[in-house]
Amino acid sequence: MAKQITSRAEDYSQWYNDLVLKAGLADYSAVRGCMVIKPYGYALWENMRDQLDRMFKETGHENAYFPLFVPKSFLEKEEGHAEGFAKECAIVTHYRLKTDPSQKGKLMIDPDAKLEEELIIRPTSEAIIWNTYKDWIQSYRDLPLLINQWANVVRWEMRTRLFLRTTEFLWQEGHTAHATKEEAIAEAEKMLEVYATFAEEWMAVPVIRGVKTESERFAGAVNTYCIEALMQDGKALQAGTSHFLGQNFAKAFDVKFLSKDNQQEYVWATSWGVTTRLIGALVMAHSDDDGLILPPKIAPVQVVLIPIPGKDEETKTKVNNKLHEIGQELKKAGLRVKVDDNDNTRPGWKFAQYELKGVPVRIALGARDIENGVAEVARRDTKEKQSISLGGLTEHITNLMDEIQQNIFNKAKTYRDQLITKVDSWEEFEKTLKEKTGFISAHWDGTAETETAIKEKTKATIRCIPLNNPQENGKCILTGKPSSQRVLFAVAY
Amino acid sequence: MAKQITSRAEDYSQWYNDLVLKAGLADYSAVRGCMVIKPYGYALWENMRDQLDRMFKETGHENAYFPLFVPKSFLEKEEGHAEGFAKECAIVTHYRLKTDPSQKGKLMIDPDAKLEEELIIRPTSEAIIWNTYKDWIQSYRDLPLLINQWANVVRWEMRTRLFLRTTEFLWQEGHTAHATKEEAIAEAEKMLEVYATFAEEWMAVPVIRGVKTESERFAGAVNTYCIEALMQDGKALQAGTSHFLGQNFAKAFDVKFLSKDNQQEYVWATSWGVTTRLIGALVMAHSDDDGLILPPKIAPVQVVLIPIPGKDEETKTKVNNKLHEIGQELKKAGLRVKVDDNDNTRPGWKFAQYELKGVPVRIALGARDIENGVAEVARRDTKEKQSISLGGLTEHITNLMDEIQQNIFNKAKTYRDQLITKVDSWEEFEKTLKEKTGFISAHWDGTAETETAIKEKTKATIRCIPLNNPQENGKCILTGKPSSQRVLFAVAY
Repeated sequence: MAKQITSRAEDYSQWYNDLVLKAGLADYSAVRGCMVIKPYGYALWENMRDQLDRMFKETGHENAYFPLFVPKSFLEKEEGHAEGFAKECAIVTHYRLKTDPSQKGKLMIDPDAKLEEELIIRPTSEAIIWNTYKDWIQSYRDLPLLINQWANVVRWEMRTRLFLRTTEFLWQEGHTAHATKEEAIAEAEKMLEVYATFAEEWMAVPVIRGVKTESERFAGAVNTYCIEALMQDGKALQAGTSHFLGQNFAKAFDVKFLSKDNQQEYVWATSWGVTTRLIGALVMAHSDDDGLILPPKIAPVQVVLIPIPGKDEETKTKVNNKLHEIGQELKKAGLRVKVDDNDNTRPGWKFAQYELKGVPVRIALGARDIENGVAEVARRDTKEKQSISLGGLTEHITNLMDEIQQNIFNKAKTYRDQLITKVDSWEEFEKTLKEKTGFISAHWDGTAETETAIKEKTKATIRCIPLNNPQENGKCILTGKPSSQRVLFAVAY
Repeated sequence: MAKQITSRAEDYSQWYNDLVLKAGLADYSAVRGCMVIKPYGYALWENMRDQLDRMFKETGHENAYFPLFVPKSFLEKEEGHAEGFAKECAIVTHYRLKTDPSQKGKLMIDPDAKLEEELIIRPTSEAIIWNTYKDWIQSYRDLPLLINQWANVVRWEMRTRLFLRTTEFLWQEGHTAHATKEEAIAEAEKMLEVYATFAEEWMAVPVIRGVKTESERFAGAVNTYCIEALMQDGKALQAGTSHFLGQNFAKAFDVKFLSKDNQQEYVWATSWGVTTRLIGALVMAHSDDDGLILPPKIAPVQVVLIPIPGKDEETKTKVNNKLHEIGQELKKAGLRVKVDDNDNTRPGWKFAQYELKGVPVRIALGARDIENGVAEVARRDTKEKQSISLGGLTEHITNLMDEIQQNIFNKAKTYRDQLITKVDSWEEFEKTLKEKTGFISAHWDGTAETETAIKEKTKATIRCIPLNNPQENGKCILTGKPSSQRVLFAVAY
């Protein structure tokens, strides 16, 4: 089984593609840059989505749904926003096909069905949503407005990769409106913390919380907060962003409210989103050459039970019955369980299959195990096997879930931490990037020019200025100009 | 409050629009034919979606996600399918905007970014999905393939109405593949029954299960099963469809499998879907001139608690505290509860507001109620009020949920049943349609010509041929030609 997958050492990028395809997370589609999310990948997304959704609701947000289409003139209204997205827009120009008179069985665009104004497939929904908020917000009593949307969006990417960068992707986008600047900033920071908590406690991916430099900001934002994760190849991956939008969209769409002081004021805004890209981050953060390693909290199947068949039918039935009994008990304890008693494949094949799929715990049971009152419990993360007494099995497995969750996180964090390197010279910077990779903490003179120059020389970008960053005097690694703090560089996905 | 809504007697259609807007279910959008689903409407959809999703999973289906775009050439492959959807397709022709050199701040289509092949926004996903299934199905071991997708789709409708008919709508679409014809038919019938159960037991909307005539079939289907509901104005509404697709899509996309007998055979298919239109059905089936009436099983809020404030702060605090205590108890019992202790609005205003929103039960509590150890419990469906002892409140409310759910269904069923009329002459048919409305059970000669003629004369269409329809000899109401069974006519949404 594992032979189907290229090893990480051989070709990390190929390993990732192989894994996504062979583990049944996703498939290529016939549409350029779009993928099919297969049932196993979608089940993973459902678990992630459901938990995020709970966290959004616990922080007072409600879901709504806005149109897929953004009229071109709406996109134009916020200048920075328009510039940022114009080059990657899918554009609807017509609304009807007709029979092609020159080719039997073919369809053509009906030229009479041309739209007066082109419609853009939403690359993000600030424009359509703020045009709506204009009608919903009159007074301070209508604020804050705390809305989230689960939706598909389209950004016409030239180079795509399964989950990491696709033309169409699934995401959630929060869009909130506030009476004061302070409240909007607090909201953007709160949602960043929700993302960080989700990444660390559910996905077991440690992240650095920070803010983007001006050139990496969301198009239309005053400030972009982000969480940055590190993959096993030493590259960084932006896992979520939360934007303080100031009054930019309120001004572009003329959204004012009557304040408590009876003044007409522009509304303050935030937006924040995470996407199916998180699945790519999850795969690349934890998995190994044998397949996925999924944290129990979001694994579609947490425990798989596999019978070791005896020689005769009677033994087989006895083992299968016992296995289903154990499975039922585990389900009752709230675990997501699969019993695979399929007769057509052998235990060894099944073992490899569920390792590939990253199921956190495997229980194997044979006739002799039943006699001895035990089952074999194997962990996917450490590959350890243990013989566990049937009497205490449910409790053992339940505890094991927490242990595995924590272990996967600890492993990723230890790895990440040793790949944060402080450097103080350009030579060291280049050497570290080349030989060690990971995050590089270095001084920067604060200019976009230097940022661009470093990117052009090394492909490394400033991933973020960490939150609560210690202030210290230093010199920019490239220009030698004075700097008041270190920032984090990395080559990124 | 209720004064904001046109009465049903005055203008049923306007009543519906007023209600959807004022109850906060949806709003018009700036994009032609598209609507915004507001948080309250979306919460209702979430409850419906979650229950349907559970039912799909219980019947062995998994969710997946396929691209939004269908290449034009894919749509062409199944002829009937292409004809059925060509006239209502939103078409993407370009993938980039650029700055308009002639107008500052404006964007224009970049003519260099024209797609080689136009992409259609999916009006339904058979074409893209069957093109994918081709790669997923090789052997009988890969079957059945039981997949569902929750997605947005676009059909360019000329006349739109909130929820009932919108250019973009949300839906689920099941797409299954089977080794035999019998199994595919059984699947289509099973999913129709899932829809019927959902409509009746969750939405409290009684439905007639049937099959469509040839002219009303889904484009590309061999047979279309449907559930038909009756609205309060005597018009029918198609609430869900399940299609037996035969081998049409397998042949169009060349999807074959190796059978147990080692033969290459075409795969058999079904598809089935329900949409956000169900929300329109729900509104129109139960609500009254004061607002929505929502069945407890899917109501976003099942119980609202409203304090009757005393004269002084101390009393107010006491009442609010008691109310929150009751609210907590109800939540513990698994109910969806809202405590509205907002100080800015008066109880009478709140009462009207939650009647408008269709909250099934309202609990009002004042200082004197606490002294007497009771609370006032008001039902939305019957408007009955009762004084209930605080000690037995949770049990009372829990039982009331079932009672209200059942009462709403019974009321709708009684209404529906008395609006099914058997007629045996054209005169009677026209008179019933005009004066009584509802479903008309009548003989039809089985030809599409007669069906069309009846539609043109009366706007009534054949809603369905009921399942297990009794066979009886009769004469077509229009042509007098022989007929072997009655079918159900109605004017429909």
